[in-house]
Amino acid sequence: MAASGIIVTAGLAEIAAGSIAMGLGGYLAARSDADHYASERERERREVRDKPDIEEREVSEIFEAYGLTPEETEPILKAFRNHPRSWIDFMMRFELGLEKPDPSRALKSAATIGGAYAVGGFVPLVPYVLVPTAGGALPFSIAITLAALLAFGFVKGRFTGAKPVKSAVQTASIGSVAAAAAFAIARAIG
Amino acid sequence: MAASGIIVTAGLAEIAAGSIAMGLGGYLAARSDADHYASERERERREVRDKPDIEEREVSEIFEAYGLTPEETEPILKAFRNHPRSWIDFMMRFELGLEKPDPSRALKSAATIGGAYAVGGFVPLVPYVLVPTAGGALPFSIAITLAALLAFGFVKGRFTGAKPVKSAVQTASIGSVAAAAAFAIARAIG
Repeated sequence: MAASGIIVTAGLAEIAAGSIAMGLGGYLAARSDADHYASERERERREVRDKPDIEEREVSEIFEAYGLTPEETEPILKAFRNHPRSWIDFMMRFELGLEKPDPSRALKSAATIGGAYAVGGFVPLVPYVLVPTAGGALPFSIAITLAALLAFGFVKGRFTGAKPVKSAVQTASIGSVAAAAAFAIARAIG
Repeated sequence: MAASGIIVTAGLAEIAAGSIAMGLGGYLAARSDADHYASERERERREVRDKPDIEEREVSEIFEAYGLTPEETEPILKAFRNHPRSWIDFMMRFELGLEKPDPSRALKSAATIGGAYAVGGFVPLVPYVLVPTAGGALPFSIAITLAALLAFGFVKGRFTGAKPVKSAVQTASIGSVAAAAAFAIARAIG
């Protein structure tokens, strides 16, 4: 029977690599969203200034899709001509579908993703720290991991408006199928 | 020196578990987005029918934020009263910020995420399949993984509008930092 030590070592190495990669990935994704917003806003600002006719037609088209005639859209265009900054904000949101990013989002993203990866990774590993043989730790690891997946799925369902019990069962099922596939492949090859 | 076999076995098990977990997770996330859209649309439909006064005030508030007066918004409200379906669509997009989800998105998401995870996972593993000792395979694994991260970052930069070379260096750096952390932890404990 293998010792738990090698599993703890491999598990901690995987947690370190995964939380760093996912956390930094989340940080850079949030940063590039912010860069993208800034560069699109600059482009839109120039278009409103240099090609107002084209931009007015774009506003009309947005409202035409909701059944407004050009006459009904005219007061909006008039208001926008007097408030170019509002016009740019409107195009960002309603033409491009871009929300102004929260400047602290990159760091929050990194901490949330990296932290969640580390916490989730420790759950199946704890029994291997406490029980010296891998065979002895395995049933405990399966039990607390299933319990953690059920609890996480339940809470996630509550927050996202899905049925909590259904969400709990789905989350635990995904984890079980993934673990079973890993186990089957390792057994088939090993 | 350890044989490559155990690394290939562990790697393939990890790829199977990861691609299933991430693929199914992506599938369910897309499905629950679609459910969320449908339930929010039904709620918005009832509100437009039962509490049109409140909904009209919400439309006015949306446009007030862009500098339009209640008088300038009136033609829009009039058009919406005659086209309740357009009104509901407008509220979904501009009050709630929700886009109608593509019905095939769940399956596409699952295939993209699961497939990408599997392809990415095979890259560092290939040398261990071809070289019998782990020590002999390691330098090749590092080299092709770095090359793959640089290439992926470059292409990603091209598609997202970021500077390709900067994106390539960032992606390779994240992978290197993550791998170095895993290696340092394994060495410190093992």
